Amino acid sequence: MSKFYSRLALKAFPYTPGEQPSDKKYIKLNSNENPYPPSPSVGKAIQEEIHKLNLYSDPEATVLVKALAEYNNVNEENIFAGNGSDEVLAFAFAAFFAGKAILCPDITYNFYFTFAKYFESEFIEVPLQEDLSVNPNDYNWDNYKKFHPRSQFGGIVLPNPNAPSGIYMNLSEIEKIVRANPDGVVLIDEAYIDFGEETAASLIDKYDNLLIVQTFSKSRSLAGLRIGFAIGNAELIKGIKRMKDSYNSFTVDRLAMYGAVAAIKDDDYFVEMKNRIITTREMVTRKLQNLGFTLTNSKGSFIFMTHRDIPAIYLYEQLKQEGVLVRHYKQPRINNYLRVSIGSEEEMNIFCDIIEKLITEAKV
Amino acid sequence: MSKFYSRLALKAFPYTPGEQPSDKKYIKLNSNENPYPPSPSVGKAIQEEIHKLNLYSDPEATVLVKALAEYNNVNEENIFAGNGSDEVLAFAFAAFFAGKAILCPDITYNFYFTFAKYFESEFIEVPLQEDLSVNPNDYNWDNYKKFHPRSQFGGIVLPNPNAPSGIYMNLSEIEKIVRANPDGVVLIDEAYIDFGEETAASLIDKYDNLLIVQTFSKSRSLAGLRIGFAIGNAELIKGIKRMKDSYNSFTVDRLAMYGAVAAIKDDDYFVEMKNRIITTREMVTRKLQNLGFTLTNSKGSFIFMTHRDIPAIYLYEQLKQEGVLVRHYKQPRINNYLRVSIGSEEEMNIFCDIIEKLITEAKV
Repeated sequence: MSKFYSRLALKAFPYTPGEQPSDKKYIKLNSNENPYPPSPSVGKAIQEEIHKLNLYSDPEATVLVKALAEYNNVNEENIFAGNGSDEVLAFAFAAFFAGKAILCPDITYNFYFTFAKYFESEFIEVPLQEDLSVNPNDYNWDNYKKFHPRSQFGGIVLPNPNAPSGIYMNLSEIEKIVRANPDGVVLIDEAYIDFGEETAASLIDKYDNLLIVQTFSKSRSLAGLRIGFAIGNAELIKGIKRMKDSYNSFTVDRLAMYGAVAAIKDDDYFVEMKNRIITTREMVTRKLQNLGFTLTNSKGSFIFMTHRDIPAIYLYEQLKQEGVLVRHYKQPRINNYLRVSIGSEEEMNIFCDIIEKLITEAKV
Repeated sequence: MSKFYSRLALKAFPYTPGEQPSDKKYIKLNSNENPYPPSPSVGKAIQEEIHKLNLYSDPEATVLVKALAEYNNVNEENIFAGNGSDEVLAFAFAAFFAGKAILCPDITYNFYFTFAKYFESEFIEVPLQEDLSVNPNDYNWDNYKKFHPRSQFGGIVLPNPNAPSGIYMNLSEIEKIVRANPDGVVLIDEAYIDFGEETAASLIDKYDNLLIVQTFSKSRSLAGLRIGFAIGNAELIKGIKRMKDSYNSFTVDRLAMYGAVAAIKDDDYFVEMKNRIITTREMVTRKLQNLGFTLTNSKGSFIFMTHRDIPAIYLYEQLKQEGVLVRHYKQPRINNYLRVSIGSEEEMNIFCDIIEKLITEAKV
């Protein structure tokens, strides 16, 4: 590596997003993108801002913060909006976890490990249970500190539902973890919460150490617009803002800000689209179970599937040849699984047909 | 501050962008925004992408990188595109300056100091000359290292033209600095280069330690869209990418990516608009000189002015009362100056009329 690189650059562990090959047109079920376009009102709101693009947007994204506060029933001081939830997570790592120790599941969204490297956090892996679920009792710093006597505790990072399993923890389990760790920030990444489960946002008044992160990339069909946000105690939100203002004053551009507000206002569209995905997820789950697959109880916009007899890597490669991209992980414990995003009903019928064909061929 | 804050959050020195009061409608000459809207082709390009917002944009922003490479006569491996030049600067600090010592003018864009705090760089201030110009001979690490024996040299950060003076250094002066510091990265922030002066991008083939940063926020009328980019040796660009991919895979959203490409393609519009601003700058400069002001030889989209008899802070406050916002700095040496963005001809005529009135009143 270059002699000019800093220690951060040398130690970095860059994240690799889902592949985007351009050799042919694929059915893309590998990045958990929403198969449906955003609400038509998003486009209208964006068009109205185009002629004002010579002006900076509001560094506080006030109109968006206001809309998010109203929607989530909290005060404006409890909301931070950023460029996708990855950026919000980065600022949260900078604000609360830089140079400190954090607990995190061993199998989860890989970007947390990347952030830990970037912000020089000590990353302590907590193994998932045999069935890939989180055991709340495993997340208590008191049980770790004796093995890490010189570490300063930063907090806990947990997606709910978890990725790539999609398994959901209920609010009393979350609350147990938050209560057991009053000296650390418990960050719950709710990227997929809208697909059927309950957010922990209602708990932020009760606990000053709970931080919720959500995104517009999945349930709001706005992956290409880059909007994520955090909900938490005002002091935590202030900390995140300090880091944003130390880094880039305007990370949410003018079009994203007004587009996101329009998406929030069109609640009917939002509810209809997410219900459509939930319905498709349940339909696909039943079909795959009938074909002999085992699936985790996913509450996300994806399924996580494995087959007793047929290797996941084989299915992954065959699907790619047939023009369908899904995600396969090389990590131990989950290297015989595929994560498949829920596409449109039509796309998922094609996917199921190919899978059925592959299974039948393999049995012959 | 909160007990949860990390050492980065505790030591942070957040940047404050130009004020945006909402008590009444102002003529905003305080943020160096372009007074003209972007090229009409930008709007068209954006509209074509709206229905695809459910899909992530390309993490490499390939179409934009390609267009920038062509426009700047370099290879794609020499370009990095990010969310405004502030973000590009942040990644460059992370990649090359984190934990190292940097040289930087004492009077310049204040965000460099903020980045230094965020990335724990040692910030060594180099005083500007009496006339606020940069002396290239002052930028040689060999002359500093004896006073900083334990520091690791990261490089040099210099805007050209400098802010808020607008004073430009020619390429042979830049080259002198680059050649004198082969062990550090010389980062030239060319945010205002398009307003009449020559970029140092032609030197990147010759020097592996030269990094140029530019923005679409000023000359391309796209402050609200968030596009900045770096030009440099492939190894430097790789380093910046490592940091981006450790932080947020998609910082340039889909609309920004295609909008920026459209802006590059409409060169006629670009040339016409920047020439209009240069003409207005020269017109305003002459008027103010006639009113007894001293101005730096600004090559930016702003002027930097002081008056022998009338305090800058008085003018700032009177202008604000009259509905015109300009920028006043409390910093020693420049606290009797105002930085005034070049608005439209109409706005600048109003500005000059108010200034003339204030000067006349003050003399009575």
